Amino acid sequence: MNGCRIAVIGATGAVGRVFLRILEERSFPIETLRLCASERSVGKSLTVNGRQHIVEPVTEQLLGEIDVAFISANSGVSRDVAPVAARLGAIAIDDSSAFRMDPAVPLVVPEVNADDLRDHRGIVAIPNCTTTPLVMALKPLHDLNPVTRLVVATYQSVTGTGAPALEELMTQSRQVLDGQLVEMLQYPHQIAFNALPEVESFTDNGYSTEEMKIVDETRKIMHAPEIQISATCVRIPVAVSHSAAVHVEFAHPIEPGAVREILSGFPGVTVVDDPHSSVYPMPIDAEGHDAVFVGRIRRDISHPNGIAMWIVADNLRKGAGLNAIQIAEEILSRELLPAPGRRV
Amino acid sequence: MNGCRIAVIGATGAVGRVFLRILEERSFPIETLRLCASERSVGKSLTVNGRQHIVEPVTEQLLGEIDVAFISANSGVSRDVAPVAARLGAIAIDDSSAFRMDPAVPLVVPEVNADDLRDHRGIVAIPNCTTTPLVMALKPLHDLNPVTRLVVATYQSVTGTGAPALEELMTQSRQVLDGQLVEMLQYPHQIAFNALPEVESFTDNGYSTEEMKIVDETRKIMHAPEIQISATCVRIPVAVSHSAAVHVEFAHPIEPGAVREILSGFPGVTVVDDPHSSVYPMPIDAEGHDAVFVGRIRRDISHPNGIAMWIVADNLRKGAGLNAIQIAEEILSRELLPAPGRRV
Repeated sequence: MNGCRIAVIGATGAVGRVFLRILEERSFPIETLRLCASERSVGKSLTVNGRQHIVEPVTEQLLGEIDVAFISANSGVSRDVAPVAARLGAIAIDDSSAFRMDPAVPLVVPEVNADDLRDHRGIVAIPNCTTTPLVMALKPLHDLNPVTRLVVATYQSVTGTGAPALEELMTQSRQVLDGQLVEMLQYPHQIAFNALPEVESFTDNGYSTEEMKIVDETRKIMHAPEIQISATCVRIPVAVSHSAAVHVEFAHPIEPGAVREILSGFPGVTVVDDPHSSVYPMPIDAEGHDAVFVGRIRRDISHPNGIAMWIVADNLRKGAGLNAIQIAEEILSRELLPAPGRRV
Repeated sequence: MNGCRIAVIGATGAVGRVFLRILEERSFPIETLRLCASERSVGKSLTVNGRQHIVEPVTEQLLGEIDVAFISANSGVSRDVAPVAARLGAIAIDDSSAFRMDPAVPLVVPEVNADDLRDHRGIVAIPNCTTTPLVMALKPLHDLNPVTRLVVATYQSVTGTGAPALEELMTQSRQVLDGQLVEMLQYPHQIAFNALPEVESFTDNGYSTEEMKIVDETRKIMHAPEIQISATCVRIPVAVSHSAAVHVEFAHPIEPGAVREILSGFPGVTVVDDPHSSVYPMPIDAEGHDAVFVGRIRRDISHPNGIAMWIVADNLRKGAGLNAIQIAEEILSRELLPAPGRRV
C-alpha cells in the first residue's frame, strides 16, 4: 500500500502536537494528512514533514475521505466523531474515555494486547495516560506470576490536563516567585508549588474518575477482572510525564532481580534502577522519550509476595500519541483497516 | 515555676525559625532563651518575643545553664550535644534521627504516646516529619480497630531538606522559566518541575532511610511492631508541607463515615473532606497551621478492610517544631524535668 489517509482531530492540543511530531519521527506512511481542531483553531497553519497544513473543521465529508481518524479532543467530540468515522468505513483511534469501557471497543496497548484489535468495529480506544505505563510494567510479570492486587499513587503532570494547564503552571509559578496574586483557570486551586489530590471529577464512591480509570482499564487491557486495584491520583507541578508509586501483590513470591530481568526484556520498557547512585526514572528525564521507565524496584516489605516500583512515562507519548500511532501501525501490518477497498 | 531555661540549637535553620515563632505563639514559659547555631551563623541576631538574641556556639557551659535543649541541626550535632545536655541535668528534645530508635529514648507525639515520656533519661526524640502526621491519623483508628498494614506514598516539600533547599527550588524555578541552565546543590537532580523518588539515602533493601523511618518509627510510637508497612518517599516541588497517599488495612471492616467521625474527635487532627466541592487538604493550605489535615477518606476498594486517605501537615510545625514544643509542655505539666532542683 502507498500509505494511509489520516485525520488528526485535536491537532493543536498538547497531545495533538506531540502526535504530529511522532508521525514524522516514525515515518508513518501517510498518503494524505488532514488536521482538525475546534473552531477557534480553524485556519491556523501547522507544519508536518516540512509541509504546511491548514487546520480544518471536522465534517462528515472529511471523515468520508480518510482511512484513520486520530481523535484527541474531549469525550464529547469523540462521541460525535468516532461513530461517524466508523460508519463511513474509517477507523477511529480515540484518546478519550468515551468508548474505553464499551465491550464492543478494543482498549489497546499494542505491546500488551494487540490481538484485541482483531475484533474492532471501527473504533479502537487508547487507555488513559496513567493506565498505559502501568499495564506495560505489569503485563510481562502477570504472565509469569499473576498480579492479585495493586495500590497506586500517581504524581501527574499538568499536560495531562492540556496545553492551557501548562501555561497556567508556568504563569502561576512566576506569580508566586514575584509575590503576585495567583490566577486560577484550569484547576480549582493553585497548582504551582502545590499538590492537588483531584484529577478529573469525583464519583460516588469517593474515588476520582481518573482513579477509577486505572481500576477499570487495567482490568480490561490485561483481561484480568479479578485484580484488586486502588489508586490515589494527584496532580503535581510538573510539565510533562506522569509518575506512579506502585505496590504490587502477586500470587506467588517474586524476587526484585527477576522483576528487573523480565521488565528489561519487555519491548517499550526501560529499567533505570540504581538508587544508590541516584539513578531512577524522573519526569524531566522521561519527557520526549518513548519508553516506560521503571525503577526503585524492591521487595514490598509489607507483603510476602509484594514488589514496589516507581514508573514514569511521557504522558503525551506512550501515554497518548505514541500509543495511538503504534495502534495504527499494528492495524496496518495486520491489514485490519475496515474497508481496504476504499483506499486508492 | 517561673519558666524554663531554654536553648534552641539550630535556631537559624528552617525548623529553628518556625520553632521560635511557635514559642512566641504559644507563650511558652521562658525564663532565659539561648540561641545556638553552627559557626557561620554565630553572632547573628534574631528577635524573639520582641527581644534581640545573639546566636552563640553550643558549649558545655551553656548546656549546664539550661533546662531544655531543643536540637534541630543534623544527627552529628545531636549525637554530640544531647548526651552532654542530659548528663548535665537538662533534657534534650531532639529532632534528628540519631536517637529515635534507641530503646532508652522515648519517641513521642504527645497526642499519641505522651505516657512514654515517663521513662525518659534526659533525651526525648521527635519523629521524622513524615511519620508524625501518619501516627496522628492512625492512632485513634488503631485503638478501635487494629491497623494491620500500611502502604504509603509521600509528596514531600523541600523544607524537609532545609532552608537552602527552599532557596534552590525557587532559584531553579526561575531558571527554568527563564530558559536558563539549572544549578543543583542540595539535590542530585533538578527539583523544580520534577519529582525525585529519593529522600535521604538508600539502604541495602532498596528503601531509602526516609522510607524505613516511616516503618520503624510508626511501629515504635504506636507500640505496634506487628504492623506491616511499606513506603515510597518522593520529593516534589512544594515549599512547605508534606502530603501522603495512605492505604490502610485494618483487622476488621470500617466505614469511611466512622473514620471521619473518629478523626474529627482526635486532638490535632482536622478532617477536610468534601472532594465533590474540591475540598481536601493541600500543602499550600496546611502551611503555617498546626493541625494534621486528613481528607479523601474512602473505602480502599481493593481490600475488604481497607481505607484510603490523603494526609497533609506542615512539616516544620506538627512535623517538627510544634511537636517538640508540645513535648516540652507535656514534660513541664507532668513535672518530668530531670533535675527540677537545679532550676532557680
